[in-house]
Amino acid sequence: MSKLLAIATTIKDWQVAEISALAEEYTVRLASDLTDEDFPNIEILYGWKNEFADQFLTQGYDSLRWIQVQFAGVNQLPSEILSDDNIRITNMSGIHAIPITETVFGYILNQYRHLLLYKTRQASSTWQAEANHRSLTDKKIIVFGAGNIGREIARLAKAFGMVTIGVNTSGRAVEYFDTTVDTDTALAESTDADIIVNVLPATDATNNIFSLDFFSRQTAQPIFINVGRGNAVVDEDLIAALDQEFLSYAALDVFDVEPLASDHPFWQHEKIDVTPHMTGQVEHFADETYKIFHANITDYLAKNELPVNLVSKEKGY
Amino acid sequence: MSKLLAIATTIKDWQVAEISALAEEYTVRLASDLTDEDFPNIEILYGWKNEFADQFLTQGYDSLRWIQVQFAGVNQLPSEILSDDNIRITNMSGIHAIPITETVFGYILNQYRHLLLYKTRQASSTWQAEANHRSLTDKKIIVFGAGNIGREIARLAKAFGMVTIGVNTSGRAVEYFDTTVDTDTALAESTDADIIVNVLPATDATNNIFSLDFFSRQTAQPIFINVGRGNAVVDEDLIAALDQEFLSYAALDVFDVEPLASDHPFWQHEKIDVTPHMTGQVEHFADETYKIFHANITDYLAKNELPVNLVSKEKGY
Repeated sequence: MSKLLAIATTIKDWQVAEISALAEEYTVRLASDLTDEDFPNIEILYGWKNEFADQFLTQGYDSLRWIQVQFAGVNQLPSEILSDDNIRITNMSGIHAIPITETVFGYILNQYRHLLLYKTRQASSTWQAEANHRSLTDKKIIVFGAGNIGREIARLAKAFGMVTIGVNTSGRAVEYFDTTVDTDTALAESTDADIIVNVLPATDATNNIFSLDFFSRQTAQPIFINVGRGNAVVDEDLIAALDQEFLSYAALDVFDVEPLASDHPFWQHEKIDVTPHMTGQVEHFADETYKIFHANITDYLAKNELPVNLVSKEKGY
Repeated sequence: MSKLLAIATTIKDWQVAEISALAEEYTVRLASDLTDEDFPNIEILYGWKNEFADQFLTQGYDSLRWIQVQFAGVNQLPSEILSDDNIRITNMSGIHAIPITETVFGYILNQYRHLLLYKTRQASSTWQAEANHRSLTDKKIIVFGAGNIGREIARLAKAFGMVTIGVNTSGRAVEYFDTTVDTDTALAESTDADIIVNVLPATDATNNIFSLDFFSRQTAQPIFINVGRGNAVVDEDLIAALDQEFLSYAALDVFDVEPLASDHPFWQHEKIDVTPHMTGQVEHFADETYKIFHANITDYLAKNELPVNLVSKEKGY
């Protein structure tokens, strides 16, 4: 049986051709052409689909050595595969930094400049200006997660004249953050931040960290933005924090269960905006992702190395 | 009759007290306390209300020497007063640069990241992501008006990784613009801009410059944003340009007649967002405006000079 390289993400014809030429000892197969019998023979997988979990666990994955996922967080992969030392995983960390950052500022500007409210009024041809438009200048933004995405948010925040606070495990300094604090301190202490943004990945350490306890320590009625993962938020506590006015508003793009159930109270809460896990969507996705895969497969084939975005088995990101 | 200093803008008590102390030879009177008989005696007017036009023209304005308006564009003042060489006018140019810029990027990000669409879908608890989210990186923005506001838009645009083109009367270089062109050239030539922003003041030279002719020369289906003045746009041509797909979208904050009439077709056009002339609204308005008035009145009283934002009678801004 020839070695199998399977492709399960958006890709262009010329990219498939280039992969086939590079990996000449492999059979290159698109996800749509995969049969159950192929799964135990896949060595390289470019792209992940959630139905693969069942297929690998049922059919086996003895040949699997490398998965290049097309997203950043790897928590949707089965734990058997995540913990298997024979399998390395690389992700697309970094390519989402710009679109996520842009969307975060979209949320903030909508709220500060009342643009969603004006859209609602437009439906009834209502000319009515609010009195309390806010500006980002001098506002304090605290970003949980000071990696690629957090740093890009901080870079733009500085351009908008904001005060930036980054949160990471160690509290080490990161470019574009005026201050950094370690996660435990940030979660335990009171803050007067105007804007709280979560970009943390889903790990055991981030489960339920945003609780009513945390929200009740915020003194400036901040807005809360979750573009990390839904596991970090206690849903009912977020609603309580909005209702008790510890928070003024929440923009949520990620949820414990996705799609968000149609009867989930987030949908109809007047202080919550829900978007369908789209913040990270990249305009030239097939090109941006292929750059990373191309760099990795070149070194994988030449010297069995994966230079870009190798996920730490220990940290989970 | 004592000299009169009238105040007709948002002001704090301590500011009124400070003005009264500074201008000790003047009677300081708030707009709400002005009688018809007061109008001929007003020498200094801080703030403008549109009903003053009739009152000055009826009662006379022989004493009037200086109007500090609380906005940027002075086109709402009567031409008799604008053209009177005895009356100097200072405006609030500059304080609106940041809020206008923030709102412009709010419009752009809403459109590029589909946030208004998701808000609409939220009403029916609909989880449905679009496929074509765009990013600002490498997009080309052309700004008509490269003064305080245009330069601030360009500064942020560079932070978002965009290509910036500024338009001013002479085509002279302006910071943060990669290129500048003169107005006649910019209006006559074809462009492949992704975003067109108008921040020009209302003058004879800017009447109806954005016509179907102009829009039809755009090759990249740009979005059009008007935060300057409504006189620049031929309303029916803008609608035609959207319907004929020369433009993909328009965000409009200013109009020929404000408030925009409830039966104006802009309100219900699916490719137009209307906001009620709010982009320039400043969060700490009474403080930001008072800084400028304070600098001017100090020099006016000491040496009859107005150092900040004196409006050119010739240019009209």
